[in-house]
Amino acid sequence: MRAYQDLNREELLALREELTKEYDAWKEKDLSLNMARGKPADAQLELSKGMMTVLGDVDLIAEDGTDVRNYGVLDGIPEAKRLMGDLMGVKPSQTIIFGNSSLNTMYDTVARAYMFGIMGSAPWSKLDHVKFLCPVPGYDRHFGITAQFGFEMIPIPMNEEGPDMDLVENYVNHDPYVKGIWCVPMYSNPSGIVYSDETVRRFARLNPAARDFRIFWDNAYAIHHLYPGKERKLLNLMEECEKAGNPDIVYQFASTSKISFPGSGIAAISASEANIKDILSRLIWQTIGYDKINQFRHVRFFKDIEGMKKHMELHAQILRPKFEGILDILDRELGDLQIASWTRPAGGYFISFNAMEGCAKKIVSKCREAGVVMTAAGATYPYGVDPADSNIRIAPSFPPLDEILLAAELFATCVKLVAVEKLLEEK
Amino acid sequence: MRAYQDLNREELLALREELTKEYDAWKEKDLSLNMARGKPADAQLELSKGMMTVLGDVDLIAEDGTDVRNYGVLDGIPEAKRLMGDLMGVKPSQTIIFGNSSLNTMYDTVARAYMFGIMGSAPWSKLDHVKFLCPVPGYDRHFGITAQFGFEMIPIPMNEEGPDMDLVENYVNHDPYVKGIWCVPMYSNPSGIVYSDETVRRFARLNPAARDFRIFWDNAYAIHHLYPGKERKLLNLMEECEKAGNPDIVYQFASTSKISFPGSGIAAISASEANIKDILSRLIWQTIGYDKINQFRHVRFFKDIEGMKKHMELHAQILRPKFEGILDILDRELGDLQIASWTRPAGGYFISFNAMEGCAKKIVSKCREAGVVMTAAGATYPYGVDPADSNIRIAPSFPPLDEILLAAELFATCVKLVAVEKLLEEK
Repeated sequence: MRAYQDLNREELLALREELTKEYDAWKEKDLSLNMARGKPADAQLELSKGMMTVLGDVDLIAEDGTDVRNYGVLDGIPEAKRLMGDLMGVKPSQTIIFGNSSLNTMYDTVARAYMFGIMGSAPWSKLDHVKFLCPVPGYDRHFGITAQFGFEMIPIPMNEEGPDMDLVENYVNHDPYVKGIWCVPMYSNPSGIVYSDETVRRFARLNPAARDFRIFWDNAYAIHHLYPGKERKLLNLMEECEKAGNPDIVYQFASTSKISFPGSGIAAISASEANIKDILSRLIWQTIGYDKINQFRHVRFFKDIEGMKKHMELHAQILRPKFEGILDILDRELGDLQIASWTRPAGGYFISFNAMEGCAKKIVSKCREAGVVMTAAGATYPYGVDPADSNIRIAPSFPPLDEILLAAELFATCVKLVAVEKLLEEK
Repeated sequence: MRAYQDLNREELLALREELTKEYDAWKEKDLSLNMARGKPADAQLELSKGMMTVLGDVDLIAEDGTDVRNYGVLDGIPEAKRLMGDLMGVKPSQTIIFGNSSLNTMYDTVARAYMFGIMGSAPWSKLDHVKFLCPVPGYDRHFGITAQFGFEMIPIPMNEEGPDMDLVENYVNHDPYVKGIWCVPMYSNPSGIVYSDETVRRFARLNPAARDFRIFWDNAYAIHHLYPGKERKLLNLMEECEKAGNPDIVYQFASTSKISFPGSGIAAISASEANIKDILSRLIWQTIGYDKINQFRHVRFFKDIEGMKKHMELHAQILRPKFEGILDILDRELGDLQIASWTRPAGGYFISFNAMEGCAKKIVSKCREAGVVMTAAGATYPYGVDPADSNIRIAPSFPPLDEILLAAELFATCVKLVAVEKLLEEK
């Protein structure tokens, strides 16, 4: 198939007729499919079924003697700190176990800085202006938090290596209003890229104008590889920060939401001991402690980080065919047409798709009309506005394989049809 | 035994010698006991052991079809809203299920008002002054939250009926800086009193100067009766508020911390539909949802509010002898001496003890020296300062019965010794 740009008006008109028929045929199928949500599939949830009874006949006593059923322990039981510390590549002493969600942990971390400041600096609520850098495309719920607090969001384009570090350095090192940057460094949401070693080192070597600037390092997919054994590696930012004499610059987040159960997992933060001390000095007024029984349940079920990694291989077996199936369809249907590009992630939960400029909303709308719900176009940008109206986040995980393949076929038809219509307008 | 005030100096000197011997004998026993913490005992935790496996062979699907293992549901699964709504005497639509702790829920509620305001009013962080009314003696962790936010805390004396309502009305109805009051209306912490019907009605009829004033109604011990069948009743504040045309004035809190497991229970807030809508409009940025598996676990274990009440009878069987044992010792040892008074709660977790003025710190310190840890004197007052240095909170729940009785005997000795020393100073 030739590139659409090379077709003349007559060829495009013929193509539109053909694609419209194809699209109408899809509509008649009365589909009801969903590629919007980064949710594990039922089969993945079944993998953790054993957690329901794993505490059935064990003493509910942590290794330091704590009765996990009773009050106490602000920072998490030792074995949970070790497990989540290993997941994030840090020491248990650099770890606090939180509640059921890393999103809530991130929100609370921003809220804490807003209300009380970081390590003695002024609360962000007392400043006339706060800015956050937002690599784009990115995670809509990150942007939602910063929007809630009224912070200015500055989009930073992503490239193959991570965020544009020239821009990041320019902002962070010179603008004292820049207090944070949202990062999903491993299998980024939605592009799936892994930050390069050089990008991580440049983060570690930042020299922020604001001493309360923090990198919000959302390591959501640290061990969520599609190809275990050939997995991508992410340089350890906290180690690099220590080497660079910048130990306090980062808050790292992780959870088991896509390891055990979304909403019923455990979340954690890791940071320098000075940051941990600062956080605990505030946290002690917020709670007596998080759910230690659930911490214990996770440790008993996974045993250790090796057990957790083995468990992730089972997730990969379920996810891989879905990613590969969609990518095969995109390659076959759109590969030569020069009307779109997309990423080929080796892990995580998303494929990032870029249509021709001005086409994303129309594609999503056409899909919806034919019964396939995609993530709203623009969702991957601050304020929900993609200036190029090009990016679409594809979430292959939740529907069964046969449904996801159907949805991808329909999606490809919509992409082609919208592209043809755009080209026709221009000719 | 005669009242100590009636003794002359010689008699007091003789008594001091005798009590000092008694106290020294206690010290030689090398005790290590704790009456400081309102924690359930091991035997109480065993009552909920079945929760560990109750989800072993059930479909993990809520009654509305929600898969409780996956993402979603901001306000709680319907059956959990019904259960916790019944616990608080409200409709499910007036209920949101939160995480593992009502303390955290209260903190977040204050934080939300501080950051974003309530139902369109100015965020408290933007005001130059915020005041909270603090009935005393009260719960130290309530005061801890308000202290963290820098609010002025105004102590309100408690009487047999609840807080001094003349004072409350005077502040709330005339001072727009007064934004809240902390209440534990049922088996109050620490006095154990239950607010009278008239007190509840006066709360409902408040006419606040600040439209964002809220009653923080911490209904922590709603069904925590020591004498099931003869339990005290608390008038339903939310119903009274509706009748009084004041539906939005109250946030009610509850949890299962002392029903199932402290730190691994479920917490809830109840409020008018307008308040609930306001809260959810902010909460949606904080989390995707709380732990639905744990919500489901609680519903499956307790079935409904009747099941929960039956479960509380088992708690009462364990707690009652401890309360009665301590009260018997206080009656026997201190009953006629006119050097102290104490409450006789019909539920909850505490006995409130008032020593002679200026004696509380010395008593607690003498107890500690002999191996019995009491709650720090002053803890029941804002900023940890009891102006009369009189109140001591006794927590009978955690130690085994034999230990609690030993500790009470020693405590009585310390109370007598410190009273004699005070009286000797005065003669």
